[in-house]
Amino acid sequence: MSVPSTLAAELQAKIDNKTKPLGALGQLEALALQLGLIQQTLRPQLKNPRILVCAGDHGAAKAGLSAYPQDVTWQMVQNFLAGGAAINVLARQAGMQLVVADAGVNHDFDVCNGLLDAKVAYGTASYLDGAAMTTEQRDAAMRHGANAIEAAHANGCNVIGFGEMGIGNTSSASLITHCLTGAPLAQCVGRGTGLDDAGVARKLALLEQALTAWTKRSDDALDVLARFGGFEIAMLAGAMIAAAERRMVLLIDGFIVTAALLVAVRINPAVRECCVFAHCSDEAGHALQLRHLEAQPLLQLGLRLGEGTGAALAYPLLKAACAFLDEMASFDAAGVSQKG
Amino acid sequence: MSVPSTLAAELQAKIDNKTKPLGALGQLEALALQLGLIQQTLRPQLKNPRILVCAGDHGAAKAGLSAYPQDVTWQMVQNFLAGGAAINVLARQAGMQLVVADAGVNHDFDVCNGLLDAKVAYGTASYLDGAAMTTEQRDAAMRHGANAIEAAHANGCNVIGFGEMGIGNTSSASLITHCLTGAPLAQCVGRGTGLDDAGVARKLALLEQALTAWTKRSDDALDVLARFGGFEIAMLAGAMIAAAERRMVLLIDGFIVTAALLVAVRINPAVRECCVFAHCSDEAGHALQLRHLEAQPLLQLGLRLGEGTGAALAYPLLKAACAFLDEMASFDAAGVSQKG
Repeated sequence: MSVPSTLAAELQAKIDNKTKPLGALGQLEALALQLGLIQQTLRPQLKNPRILVCAGDHGAAKAGLSAYPQDVTWQMVQNFLAGGAAINVLARQAGMQLVVADAGVNHDFDVCNGLLDAKVAYGTASYLDGAAMTTEQRDAAMRHGANAIEAAHANGCNVIGFGEMGIGNTSSASLITHCLTGAPLAQCVGRGTGLDDAGVARKLALLEQALTAWTKRSDDALDVLARFGGFEIAMLAGAMIAAAERRMVLLIDGFIVTAALLVAVRINPAVRECCVFAHCSDEAGHALQLRHLEAQPLLQLGLRLGEGTGAALAYPLLKAACAFLDEMASFDAAGVSQKG
Repeated sequence: MSVPSTLAAELQAKIDNKTKPLGALGQLEALALQLGLIQQTLRPQLKNPRILVCAGDHGAAKAGLSAYPQDVTWQMVQNFLAGGAAINVLARQAGMQLVVADAGVNHDFDVCNGLLDAKVAYGTASYLDGAAMTTEQRDAAMRHGANAIEAAHANGCNVIGFGEMGIGNTSSASLITHCLTGAPLAQCVGRGTGLDDAGVARKLALLEQALTAWTKRSDDALDVLARFGGFEIAMLAGAMIAAAERRMVLLIDGFIVTAALLVAVRINPAVRECCVFAHCSDEAGHALQLRHLEAQPLLQLGLRLGEGTGAALAYPLLKAACAFLDEMASFDAAGVSQKG
């Protein structure tokens, strides 16, 4: 344990010797320290940043859990491929490469359109009736995630933002969050893409029914994932575990991505230390997840879009943290007097 | 009044037709709307972004109001010119041009070093004994600010972040904030560059003394500015008024810059609508100023450095707001179904 704690002390000393009052860059200083620790260096650098957006459909969505019809999943994937969605614009703006994966969308896409084919099935089964996926499907989706990370890593990527698309997936995330944090279900259920109060009440009632239907209930993360997950969530969880194994920086987006992280962290707690939390979204339950993970998000902009948009918006702050650590002068070098 | 409200409605419709749930980009949507209204267009664009850092010394600083010696003002200006300070790194990172102005530093700088010469005097007089500056000095500093904006505008700049440097200037900002908001002085006084509790108590006692010494007290913004201001604060106030007259986007940084804005808004209330608030700093009194201005800052990162660092860190969010408004597909164009 002496090596990492020495590095932490050296990083802190480097930060404290920059020409600014102690701690004056606030959360950016903690971020610089964390990036150094993830990369085990005094000079962390971000290379070939990427956003991985995983898309999947949910059998339970047909019960009317969302304000939007299920077709919006594949339509939005087409929108990603055409470059017109928010994540396209914001990833481009942030200088991040966007990779969109079909983890299990209920649609046949044209080949050769840039989509990463990771399709496990045409959507999950409905967890209102049984398990959303078989254990084989779950493991296949997680392997797809690991493969996507291997490809990114081979491409020199050392920082990866996670995003998702899937009509009905806030419901899946709510169930996972309830099962893995122990928080009351009602606190984990929100408006998703824009339900009104009656819609939220209906969603909550359906999800309570889904919990009741799970007679052999377990709080094992893999069991929870198979019962309530989406393929996109399973793929994200697999990707997160693989990314942390490679000491990549994991840039965590909103409610659904954080639900995948709850699974990943339960499987391998070391994933947590590689995570930078991009933002706290407006979706009920996200703040609860962040508290559970003892996470301090970078942004609070009232976002509730998903797609990895918060990750893309926060990325410039990671670059700024590396830049001040690398480029700012020390008091000695600049000939500036220290505190009296 | 019908033209601007029509534009607001058109901007809102444009935002609402983007392929995302209504309001899902949170504060970024309000920002896009504001940028469109400032520029009076459905397609706001940010051009030649600049940070103007104004530096000045404070006569009262010699009484021991700061944790740092007064020489740090000119030393930090040298650090700006050498490119080693936080604002150099963060402005570069954000793609913003940095202009550093000597509004009244107690030092002779070499000529031809890139510094904008706006020196009114070698620091203000101490407001513990009388007015910090004469009305002529105040007006000269404000004119210097207007001139700096004229130069930026002539250079095609339409978005300007404000920053400052001046040992002792949180004290000046505290007095101005107290006088112009009516908030109790104690709520306007904070740790500055890092005072301990005893230091804050001493600072508060000195500032109470400064208020008592002002026998012909006024709440006129120009009077307050002359009595307690710094030359950098007066220059900033002048710059803000001039920038708003040109419908530039004003990117407001921390406590001292916001004190200058309180002056500017009192002189011309229309300045307020051109202001984007970069962040809420950790300096006591900044949150109070923001509430007074009914401002919602973009970032809450616990910054307390000044120099315009918060403005530089927030700038990518302004770019993102313009980008989503300009580049995202509409529901119709993308063939995505609307909410059911």
